[in-house]
Amino acid sequence: MRVLDRGDQLRTELDAARAAGPTVGLVPTMGALHEGHASLIRRSVAECDVTAVTIFVNPLQFNDAADLAAYPADLDGDVALAAAAGADVVFAPSVAEMYPAGPPAVTVHVAGEDTMEGASRPGHFDGVATVVAKLFNLAGPCRAYFGEKDWQQLRVVRRLVADLSFPVEVVGCPTVREADGLALSSRNALLSPAEREAARVLYRALATAAIAKAAGECDARILMVNMVAKEPLATLDYAEVLPDRLLVAARFGNVRLIDNVGA
Amino acid sequence: MRVLDRGDQLRTELDAARAAGPTVGLVPTMGALHEGHASLIRRSVAECDVTAVTIFVNPLQFNDAADLAAYPADLDGDVALAAAAGADVVFAPSVAEMYPAGPPAVTVHVAGEDTMEGASRPGHFDGVATVVAKLFNLAGPCRAYFGEKDWQQLRVVRRLVADLSFPVEVVGCPTVREADGLALSSRNALLSPAEREAARVLYRALATAAIAKAAGECDARILMVNMVAKEPLATLDYAEVLPDRLLVAARFGNVRLIDNVGA
Repeated sequence: MRVLDRGDQLRTELDAARAAGPTVGLVPTMGALHEGHASLIRRSVAECDVTAVTIFVNPLQFNDAADLAAYPADLDGDVALAAAAGADVVFAPSVAEMYPAGPPAVTVHVAGEDTMEGASRPGHFDGVATVVAKLFNLAGPCRAYFGEKDWQQLRVVRRLVADLSFPVEVVGCPTVREADGLALSSRNALLSPAEREAARVLYRALATAAIAKAAGECDARILMVNMVAKEPLATLDYAEVLPDRLLVAARFGNVRLIDNVGA
Repeated sequence: MRVLDRGDQLRTELDAARAAGPTVGLVPTMGALHEGHASLIRRSVAECDVTAVTIFVNPLQFNDAADLAAYPADLDGDVALAAAAGADVVFAPSVAEMYPAGPPAVTVHVAGEDTMEGASRPGHFDGVATVVAKLFNLAGPCRAYFGEKDWQQLRVVRRLVADLSFPVEVVGCPTVREADGLALSSRNALLSPAEREAARVLYRALATAAIAKAAGECDARILMVNMVAKEPLATLDYAEVLPDRLLVAARFGNVRLIDNVGA
């Protein structure tokens, strides 16, 4: 497996691969890789000839400097996990490599995502769309794998590809969970043992609300609100019920977690 | 020469060409082609193996509905000119093909271009950058030819490519002028004979100011302002002097023209 830190290296490597015919799979990540990322990488490896994992904690998508500063990083561990999952290339650029002149003058703007993460994290999806556009341009035509855990992000990336006609097929992949239902997240590592225990409420609320919604008896959103309210270490950010999805976000101390399930 | 109106056709055509090795040249235009466009096409034909001309009057970049409605269109004439200049492909999509769901939710935003065209035409460069990004994504890796007549636009496109890492080499090409100095523009066709005569003042002011700037005696910007003010049919929008460029914009009746020269 090759570990690259320059955009032109990634482009050259993947262009050369494609010239010989292979399909390229791209797995964009912010590092601190866990089994959820591994499942994306393994799926790409199974479906594509060459798999590139990108690792970049993108400052543009953090509206909260403390959140950015606390975001976990472990490049050596990430490289080992990516290799074990079968990746061919890891692209781990510095901030200076991605944004050599500081914050870019040209960015991607996402309209119509003003609820949930869009409301709680102003500018977040513009930052996501900007870095994903740049990674797509460096990687070239590919299948790109994103987790459903960041469900609204997945919707934004699909919109990005459709509206700006990127030569990319977006593949959404199921959320990977701990045995007790907690969705895997790099931020889980920041939870205290008590907060980790409390965080179980998110999936419990989602799963219960999904059953209640299907049964049609009670208000699934209020059900989630009430369940999270009963957990003393949890502070609800939002609970939303869409026609096909239930979503929730809450804080546990300084750690903000999100999750969702189909409905 | 092939004339296409669907984005997937353009992508398929140019991907197939590239797979066999050739370099693709792209000449994005808004149609109503004139000798200025022909010079871009001929340069692309000389430097690339395959040349695609795009013709799309992009509503996103018009802040003035009357300007959009009045913009000249002549697809048959454009196709003939493109063919005569040696183009291999013309891509002339409808608005519905480019923006099937209406104005796109995901757009490209350009910061730091708040003067000149950016000040006079709010949202113009966002619209330009959005459609150019989409055309780049449909065309794939290429050399893209833009005229220096739209000097600020050329700067925006270079910034777009650098900041979002498009696999595109931007080539700026010299402005083509009438014998009396007027820069070729599709909008020139909208001028009355008297306005056409009056429009000579733009290049006259630029050329005179460039000489004055080099000589270092007077204020080149005030010189341009005064020269345009003496032309009764002209209403100055702006005159600017940058370290390496002189630029001017003015209205002649309902027609707004821009021009610039090196300094």
